[in-house]
Amino acid sequence: MPKVIALSGGVGGSKLVEGFARTCRPGELLVIANTGDDFTHLGLHISPDIDTVIYTCTGRSNPQTGWGQDGETWSFMDMLHILGGPDWFKLGDRDLAMHVWRTHRLSQGASLTAVTQELAERCGLTFPLLPMSDDPVRTVVETTEGLLPMQRYFVERRCAPVVTGLLYEGAETARPNPTLMANLQDPELEAIVICPSNPFLSIDPILALPGLRQALRNAPAPVVAVTPIIGGRAIKGPTAKMMAELGLPVDAAAVARHYAGLIDLFVLDEQDAYLTGEVAAAGIKPFPAETMMHDTADRIALAKAVLNAAAAAHQTL
Amino acid sequence: MPKVIALSGGVGGSKLVEGFARTCRPGELLVIANTGDDFTHLGLHISPDIDTVIYTCTGRSNPQTGWGQDGETWSFMDMLHILGGPDWFKLGDRDLAMHVWRTHRLSQGASLTAVTQELAERCGLTFPLLPMSDDPVRTVVETTEGLLPMQRYFVERRCAPVVTGLLYEGAETARPNPTLMANLQDPELEAIVICPSNPFLSIDPILALPGLRQALRNAPAPVVAVTPIIGGRAIKGPTAKMMAELGLPVDAAAVARHYAGLIDLFVLDEQDAYLTGEVAAAGIKPFPAETMMHDTADRIALAKAVLNAAAAAHQTL
Repeated sequence: MPKVIALSGGVGGSKLVEGFARTCRPGELLVIANTGDDFTHLGLHISPDIDTVIYTCTGRSNPQTGWGQDGETWSFMDMLHILGGPDWFKLGDRDLAMHVWRTHRLSQGASLTAVTQELAERCGLTFPLLPMSDDPVRTVVETTEGLLPMQRYFVERRCAPVVTGLLYEGAETARPNPTLMANLQDPELEAIVICPSNPFLSIDPILALPGLRQALRNAPAPVVAVTPIIGGRAIKGPTAKMMAELGLPVDAAAVARHYAGLIDLFVLDEQDAYLTGEVAAAGIKPFPAETMMHDTADRIALAKAVLNAAAAAHQTL
Repeated sequence: MPKVIALSGGVGGSKLVEGFARTCRPGELLVIANTGDDFTHLGLHISPDIDTVIYTCTGRSNPQTGWGQDGETWSFMDMLHILGGPDWFKLGDRDLAMHVWRTHRLSQGASLTAVTQELAERCGLTFPLLPMSDDPVRTVVETTEGLLPMQRYFVERRCAPVVTGLLYEGAETARPNPTLMANLQDPELEAIVICPSNPFLSIDPILALPGLRQALRNAPAPVVAVTPIIGGRAIKGPTAKMMAELGLPVDAAAVARHYAGLIDLFVLDEQDAYLTGEVAAAGIKPFPAETMMHDTADRIALAKAVLNAAAAAHQTL
């Protein structure tokens, strides 16, 4: 049974996941990926966050682009462009194998959980990675320009439209991954970690699944969130911009308050230690740490800090 | 209205088609591709003969492999191999764009005819190319090792199993391309050409469509077949091997007899001129020519020879 369950989105979350993977012993880590970003493009089922976790934790991520695979080639997109196909979503040739194979296996009746395990294992992932649900949940961004499916907002429009709200279509009837739900109640579990991912795009879709918030509240292990905001800025992506547009202060304390009632502990950056009072006022124990992850050593150090904080909190729960 | 209709398979046929494309004026050529080789692989609709005609006639064919696109990359196959996907059918990265886009457009409700026209136009094909039918016909090879779908026989097994017969599944209920059927009866048509393709794998699937043989017999234009066998050998592919296994003499005359009752004229190689008596005995006018196509000049020369033969025959019909 796992000792650590991590809920993760894409780039930011997967860096901390890599830290856990290099810190935990075999069998101790279970990772749940957001699938609210999943979408069908050119008939292919694309699971961006699942693939990002796999790529990041098997040494395949592309350091130049920040997404996709290292050593990627682009012949497919070149030819698709000639054919007049859509080119707003870049599909690398290697990346495409994940999507084609996933789509094919799903069409054969395999669940997304089963396919994800197959892909992860073949890529050499050392821990179980599960989609938050086998049922479709689709994040839709409500903007001043109308409703935009997540990838249209994120990739095609480069997060330019002003966000007024978010919808997680299908979440109300989607079944949370049963392995996640079973393990959340395990008395041996030591930490449930909300990774430093975009709260609105990566974590809230998971939390929108029926019974998941209650399961986190009931879990015997402490729930720890790690800030995606450092010094009032997001490391990557639109978190800060979205917070401002949604009328929130752009700081780590606002992220902590976003998770109030759900988390026991909030890891914020040491440079934001002045916000510990605000965090504590929300009934959440603040835990300052070095949260910027430049390299693998940083990822491991933050993973250890999070686990230490959880262990300390566990004793007081 | 077209003056020349060419029925073509893949590599051999598309060489002569290129000759026609460089000989005919705009609007004079209509090409019909065999789709008995089409199959679904990894959920993708693959039309090998359509793609070969497009690649050959738009300067995209790969001179090294004899199939696929020039300047191809193989990252998709590399990654698919890692994922444990099937690797017996090689899908190049550029090639894949054709299959993904075709599959996507078909899933949107476009006909294979419409999609083929879109792909051909975007690739710069200068003449209309139509699938023989929008309905699925699947060539199955009957061998001493059992029934093998065409691509399993051709690609996976490299034509090794001994052929005892052929089936064209779906042919009896497939609707021949209506544009083909309409144009075959056009009094302005000058030639209907059966290209130098494998009779069993590339041409017979077309001829198996309901009403097609009768339409060829009724056509006012002469029907001309060009030999795929020169000096008792096939230029490429298993034609000769299959003829031997099916108990036929391996020579051009046997190909002519295979089309007896259907064709008016048979173009055989000058080195096989000794067979003209045999061809004539089958009620077919023999027409010796240089049929080996090493380069574009050869393709144009053979196309002109075929059209000249048809013109001469037309006057005597």
